[in-house]
Amino acid sequence: MSRNPLYFDDLQVGDTFQTATHALDTEQIKAFAQQFDPQPFHLDEAAARDSMFGSLAASGWHTAAITMRLLVTSGPPLANGIIGAGGDIEWKAPTRPGDVLQVHSEVVALTPSRSRPDRGMVVLRSNTLNQRGEVVQTLNAKLMVARRAA
Amino acid sequence: MSRNPLYFDDLQVGDTFQTATHALDTEQIKAFAQQFDPQPFHLDEAAARDSMFGSLAASGWHTAAITMRLLVTSGPPLANGIIGAGGDIEWKAPTRPGDVLQVHSEVVALTPSRSRPDRGMVVLRSNTLNQRGEVVQTLNAKLMVARRAA
Repeated sequence: MSRNPLYFDDLQVGDTFQTATHALDTEQIKAFAQQFDPQPFHLDEAAARDSMFGSLAASGWHTAAITMRLLVTSGPPLANGIIGAGGDIEWKAPTRPGDVLQVHSEVVALTPSRSRPDRGMVVLRSNTLNQRGEVVQTLNAKLMVARRAA
Repeated sequence: MSRNPLYFDDLQVGDTFQTATHALDTEQIKAFAQQFDPQPFHLDEAAARDSMFGSLAASGWHTAAITMRLLVTSGPPLANGIIGAGGDIEWKAPTRPGDVLQVHSEVVALTPSRSRPDRGMVVLRSNTLNQRGEVVQTLNAKLMVARRAA
């Protein structure tokens, strides 16, 4: 697969990208939760049944981290990497063991930096979908993207 | 330490919480990056020197995950756990090997649910600070918090 580096100047609002997929399983969900989000509904099936989630669900931060992995390894090949200043995130549905996640992204804003002529700000909207096409997470990330040298 | 469970009805705008600390090191930074954000500036000191970061820096998602761990293990003891619907996040400064992170949180909004009388939405602003008191991340999280039974 060709992965020519993309600079700020190469991007247009409306450009779309689609990543490879990631298969989530119980072991991954519990391992992440043990390390970063040790709450019963992410660690134990029985506890999850008695929670708002109804059955074992991944930490939202796990979904976010998998989304980042997919973007970095098979998303837009930004010249200086995928470097975020921040953004907003929404978890629309739980992610579960057996889910196969994929990220669909779209450039929604492009703002050249006034103070730094070597870069611009790109807002990339990334929907993370499961195998049924349901959006489990939406992330609007503000990315710092290098400009082509003048 | 007493950790009486907190319900929506127990919280007030302006309530503050402070977590324990987490010491970040090179090994953790590289392990997280290898799994979720495999970019050179999170994996390799020499590559990081030639990047926007100037030296090895943790993935922002790693900072977010550590923030969640601190909130879950020593933040507000919410009755039903810390369950986020989403929020906005800003990475204000890189996190580095040797950083000791701590989270200072404040309740900034409380909204009873109209459709679900058993819960409310709490906006919790969490600043993640390093050992010099610099804010490395700000997270405004929308949390679903259970109400006391009427």
